[in-house]
Amino acid sequence: MPPSSTTAATATRGRPGYAREDVIQIAVEEFNARGYEATSMGTLAERLGLSKSAIYHHISSKEEILVEATDKALAELKAVMDAALAESDDPLEQLRLLVAGTTRVLCQFPAYVRLLLRLRGNTEVEREIMARRRLLTRTLVDVVDRAQAEGSLRSDLEAGVVARLIFGMINSIVEWYRPDGKYAPEDLAQLTPQMIFDGIVKPGVRHG
Amino acid sequence: MPPSSTTAATATRGRPGYAREDVIQIAVEEFNARGYEATSMGTLAERLGLSKSAIYHHISSKEEILVEATDKALAELKAVMDAALAESDDPLEQLRLLVAGTTRVLCQFPAYVRLLLRLRGNTEVEREIMARRRLLTRTLVDVVDRAQAEGSLRSDLEAGVVARLIFGMINSIVEWYRPDGKYAPEDLAQLTPQMIFDGIVKPGVRHG
Repeated sequence: MPPSSTTAATATRGRPGYAREDVIQIAVEEFNARGYEATSMGTLAERLGLSKSAIYHHISSKEEILVEATDKALAELKAVMDAALAESDDPLEQLRLLVAGTTRVLCQFPAYVRLLLRLRGNTEVEREIMARRRLLTRTLVDVVDRAQAEGSLRSDLEAGVVARLIFGMINSIVEWYRPDGKYAPEDLAQLTPQMIFDGIVKPGVRHG
Repeated sequence: MPPSSTTAATATRGRPGYAREDVIQIAVEEFNARGYEATSMGTLAERLGLSKSAIYHHISSKEEILVEATDKALAELKAVMDAALAESDDPLEQLRLLVAGTTRVLCQFPAYVRLLLRLRGNTEVEREIMARRRLLTRTLVDVVDRAQAEGSLRSDLEAGVVARLIFGMINSIVEWYRPDGKYAPEDLAQLTPQMIFDGIVKPGVRHG
């Protein structure tokens, strides 16, 4: 029987039975730890406890893993963004739902999103993935743009830059978030829209 | 005479005359484009238009370049943070100066800071650099902490998380900022403290 978790998989070094999701998860961890470019099929085989020929029963190339993992991240992000747009007609509320939803996805799949964010675009496949990533940024820019146009967001800040800084803040969560740490995804999904909407200064405090 | 800019350097393919800063800059671009782990001395030699033996007149190892470039980034960041702390006794004003100052550094040295931020800690040297990076985060956490304690920042948000999200937002600038683009460093140095302090919602607009 194939191991059903990473821990179980690690314990079965040398045994070729892996659930697909374990192979992907371990490979993504390896990409994130060493860099995608510096990870070879040989490294992956070693990490999975498989021989260099046995790994091909599981993976045809490292690119296949990259595509599957980033597909997952992109699909999850797109789903919460689409849901945010569908749930309200008010751009400000759409923006709040979108920020909260993407925060939740980052907390649930930090490793997959981290891989997505660190792509460098050295291959055609990577550039296609990055183009899909840019569509998500585009969606966020549009929402910020509409919220500025209808007057709920300050319009002295350029929508494109604001949207990039918003995603910059949220995306950084994947660099430190631990699913077994002290914050639940929901805690951060409450915090990020609040910080982005109202800032961190106590209401009424004057500052330069 | 050694070339004094990247363009000039590129034009002198095969000629071993390089200013030190050009070698570092080109190597950092290469690390950022391919990943530090995946870049070899051979790759760097090729990129610099040098033979595999000639490159050792310029660089003893790729680690030497990593150290020099991240030293530069860390020193610049530390300098503006120290200046922010020295310039005011008010934690809120210190925070504003610190956010504006680090934003300026990111705009001036996006490639060096990008290298610093993408380190994975696979070698002892990388782990030392990352420890110095963590000291800067610690400084930011302390300022946020003090501003909360004296009552100028909302204290419902945990200082450690707020500080990480602030740096996350600012640091993301290195992913898209172009020194020859439409924003001057000063524009962004005005924008980031504003967004972080007051948020993006127009004053008086009610929201969930």
